[in-house]
Amino acid sequence: MDLLIRGGFVVTVDPEDRSFYGDVAIANSTIVAVGPNLDVKATNTIDAVGCAVMPGFVNCHMHETLDRGVFEDLPFTTWLNDFAMPKDTALLPEDIRASAFLNQAEMILNGTTTFIDIFRFPDEAAAIAEVSGLRAVFSPQLMDDPVGSGESFDTSLAFIERWKDRVPGRIQTWFGPHAMYTCTEPTLRQVGKVAREIGVGIHIHLAETPFEVRWVAAHSGGKTPAEHLDNLIGLDSDVLAAHCIEMTASDINLLARTGVGAAHCPTSNAKLGNGIAKVVEMQMGGVKVGLGTDSNMTNNNLDMFEELRMASLVQKQQLRDPTVMSSAQSLRLATQGSADALGMGQLVGSIELGKQADVIVVDLSAPHMRPIVDFGRTNTVEQLVWSANGSDVRDTIVDGKVLMRNRRIQTLRISDLADQVDGPLVDLLRRADVLEKLFAD
Amino acid sequence: MDLLIRGGFVVTVDPEDRSFYGDVAIANSTIVAVGPNLDVKATNTIDAVGCAVMPGFVNCHMHETLDRGVFEDLPFTTWLNDFAMPKDTALLPEDIRASAFLNQAEMILNGTTTFIDIFRFPDEAAAIAEVSGLRAVFSPQLMDDPVGSGESFDTSLAFIERWKDRVPGRIQTWFGPHAMYTCTEPTLRQVGKVAREIGVGIHIHLAETPFEVRWVAAHSGGKTPAEHLDNLIGLDSDVLAAHCIEMTASDINLLARTGVGAAHCPTSNAKLGNGIAKVVEMQMGGVKVGLGTDSNMTNNNLDMFEELRMASLVQKQQLRDPTVMSSAQSLRLATQGSADALGMGQLVGSIELGKQADVIVVDLSAPHMRPIVDFGRTNTVEQLVWSANGSDVRDTIVDGKVLMRNRRIQTLRISDLADQVDGPLVDLLRRADVLEKLFAD
Repeated sequence: MDLLIRGGFVVTVDPEDRSFYGDVAIANSTIVAVGPNLDVKATNTIDAVGCAVMPGFVNCHMHETLDRGVFEDLPFTTWLNDFAMPKDTALLPEDIRASAFLNQAEMILNGTTTFIDIFRFPDEAAAIAEVSGLRAVFSPQLMDDPVGSGESFDTSLAFIERWKDRVPGRIQTWFGPHAMYTCTEPTLRQVGKVAREIGVGIHIHLAETPFEVRWVAAHSGGKTPAEHLDNLIGLDSDVLAAHCIEMTASDINLLARTGVGAAHCPTSNAKLGNGIAKVVEMQMGGVKVGLGTDSNMTNNNLDMFEELRMASLVQKQQLRDPTVMSSAQSLRLATQGSADALGMGQLVGSIELGKQADVIVVDLSAPHMRPIVDFGRTNTVEQLVWSANGSDVRDTIVDGKVLMRNRRIQTLRISDLADQVDGPLVDLLRRADVLEKLFAD
Repeated sequence: MDLLIRGGFVVTVDPEDRSFYGDVAIANSTIVAVGPNLDVKATNTIDAVGCAVMPGFVNCHMHETLDRGVFEDLPFTTWLNDFAMPKDTALLPEDIRASAFLNQAEMILNGTTTFIDIFRFPDEAAAIAEVSGLRAVFSPQLMDDPVGSGESFDTSLAFIERWKDRVPGRIQTWFGPHAMYTCTEPTLRQVGKVAREIGVGIHIHLAETPFEVRWVAAHSGGKTPAEHLDNLIGLDSDVLAAHCIEMTASDINLLARTGVGAAHCPTSNAKLGNGIAKVVEMQMGGVKVGLGTDSNMTNNNLDMFEELRMASLVQKQQLRDPTVMSSAQSLRLATQGSADALGMGQLVGSIELGKQADVIVVDLSAPHMRPIVDFGRTNTVEQLVWSANGSDVRDTIVDGKVLMRNRRIQTLRISDLADQVDGPLVDLLRRADVLEKLFAD
C-alpha cells in the first residue's frame, strides 16, 4: 500500500451517501480499500483524526486568468469593450503561465482536485498542470468571429494533438469553442465533427444571457440556444455547457435526453447580473449538473465550499423553499455531480473502490466548524457544506500523490507572488493600455 | 503611545473612503494618529507589512446559539414546531455560556469586533464578552406570547440594570423584544416607554416573512409591520430592526424619517427561503442599513466577509445590474454602515482619529488574494471584498487591546471544543427530546 489516510470521518459521496469514521487506502494512484479500522500497512500514512476525508472538488467551469479584482462593478458594455477585450487582445503566453500558476496554487490550497479550464495559450496552462499535479481538462477558448480574438480551430487541434497523450489519465484535452456568437457556424460544425472523430469533449458557454437568446434567435430563425447548438455540433454526452441559464422546459429535456453536462456558476451569474439557472428543475429533469466557479474575474475566489453554498442558497431563495438542494445534494453537486457533468464520473468524484485517489482532508477543529454531534450519525456534512471554506482544507491528494500537506503546497513554490503574478498583471494591463484608465486617480 | 500598527495598507472606510500605505497609532483604547510613516514611539508594535489594516466588522444582527448544522433543510413548520421550539424551551443558562464561548471565539477569529446578540440568558453571554474583549450589545430576547417562551420584560430590565455600567463603553444593554407576533401589545408599549426613560436601544425582528405581514395586518386593522411597530413602540433612531424584507415604499420612508437602523441578513433570508430585502432602495431612501449574519443556525458561519459578498451578489442578481453595491459600498455596509445602524457610528466602524481602536489586520499573501496591483491606487479593497474570508484575518484588536495575534486568540482558551461545545449541544438536544429524532438513523 502506498498511502493510508487514517482515522478521519470519511464522507464518501458514493451512491448511498455513506459516511463513517475510518480509513482510505491507496495503491498506484487508486483507492483500493475504504472502511473502518482497515488492517493494512502502507509506506506513508496521513493521520486524519479530527478531520473529514472527502473527495476533492471538481470545478467544471473556469478560466485561468490573472484579472482578479481589477474590473469591478462596471456596466457590462464598459467592462467588455473598454477593459476585457483590450486585455484579452494583449495577452501573451507568459501571462497564461502566471495565471495558471496563480489559479492552480489557489485550487490546491482550497481542495479542488480536478478542473476544466477554457482560455488562451493552453500549452502554458497545461505545462503548469504537469508540475502542479492537479487533474485537468484544457479546452482552448476558440473564438474566430472576429478572427484572432481567441484560439483558432487549427491552434486548438494542434494543442489537442500535442497534449492528449502527454500526461495520460491526468491531463485531458478538449475543444473549447467559446460560444455560438463568437464562433462562425462552419467552425462550430467542424468542431462537432472532428471532436467525435478523435474522441475528445467539447466545452462551450450556452444560454448565459438574454443577449445570447436574442442573438441566436436572430441567426437561427427563432431557435433557442440549446436547439441551435444541437443543430450545429450535435448535442451528446461529450458536451459540457457552461451557465445554462436561459433554458425552456424543452431545452432542459433536450439536454437530459442527449446527456449534455451543465456547468452551473451561481456566483458569476449573480455578480454579472445575469439570471438564475433552474438547477433544481434541470436535476429533476435528468440533466447532469455540475458546479463551476467561472474565472477569478467574476467570482472572485475559486473556493468550491463557498460556491456550493451559493448554489444551494440561490435555489432556496428563488424557490422560497428551505428543503431544496439539501446539504448532501450540495456537496454532491461539487464533487460527483461535477465529475458526471465532465464525463469523468467513473474516474473521480467520490471515495469508492477503484476510483482515482483524488481526496482531501478537511480540518474540523476551528470554532466555525463546531459543534460536531456524534450520535449514531454526525452533522459533519452539514458543517462542511454550511460553514467550511477552502482554508479549512489541510491536505490535497490527486492520483494518490500529496499535492498539499498541512497547508503547504508540495509541487509549486509560491515564494514571491509579487514577482510571480502581481508584476505580470501590471505588464498585461499596461500592454492593453488600460492600466492608467483603471488605476490612476 | 500604547500600540502602533505599522506598514500595512490602511483601508479607513472614512467618509472619503481613503486608503494608503501607513500606520495607525493607538493610545488609551483610542485611535490617535493615522497616516503614512507616522513618527511616533509605542510600547507595542504590530508589523502589518503585506497586510490590510481595516476597521473590525460590526455584526448588527445575530443570536449566540449552539445549533449550527443540526436542523438543516427542513420545512419551516417542522423546523419550528418539532425542533427549534422544544430546543429553546429546554435551554439552560449553561447552554448559553457554551454558545457565547463558541460564537465569540469564532468572531474574534474572523475579525468581528462588535456584535449585537439577541437571545436567552444574557448574563451568561455578557460574562463571556467581559472576558473575550469583544464590543457587544446584549438585547435579551423577550417573548411573552405565550408566556415563558423567552425572556420577560422583568428579566430583561433586571439584566439591563445589572450590566449597563459594568463594562463601560464596551458592553451595552438594550431591550430585545423578539417580534410583534411573539410579544403582547402591552409589553411592546412598555418596552418603548421604559427604553426611552432609561436611555437604551431596542432590537426587534421586523417584516421578515409574509406570515408576519398577514399576522400584523390581521391584528392591526391592515397596517404594515413597520407602521404597526411605530404605533406600538414609536420608531426612532434607538431602534434596530432585523431583516426588513417586506417593506413598502412608504415603510422605507418611515424608517428613513425616524432614523431606524435596518439589519440586513442576506444569507439567512436566502437559506430560510424568505424574500429579498430592498437594500439598494432602502439605502437610496436614506435608511441606515447594516449587515448581520443572523445565528449560526441559519447562516451557518459568522463570516462577515462572506456575508458582505452575499449582500452585494444578491442585489446585483436581483436588480440585474453589476454596478450596484460596489466593492467599497459593500465593505462600508459591514463596518461603518452597521455601526451607524447600531447607533454607534461615532464610536466605531472606521479608522479615524478619536474613534475607538477596533481594528483588524488581514493577511494579503495567499494566492486567492492576489494579484495586488499598486499603481497610484491598489485593488486591495476589491480583493478584500470579493476574495477574502474570515480565515485571512491575522490580528483582531478592540479598544486597542489585542484579542487575536497571528491567528491565536489571546482572551479565550479554545483548547477542547468537544468538551466546551459539542457535549453541551448533545445535552441540550437530549433535554429537548430531539436528539434521537435528529441523529439516530
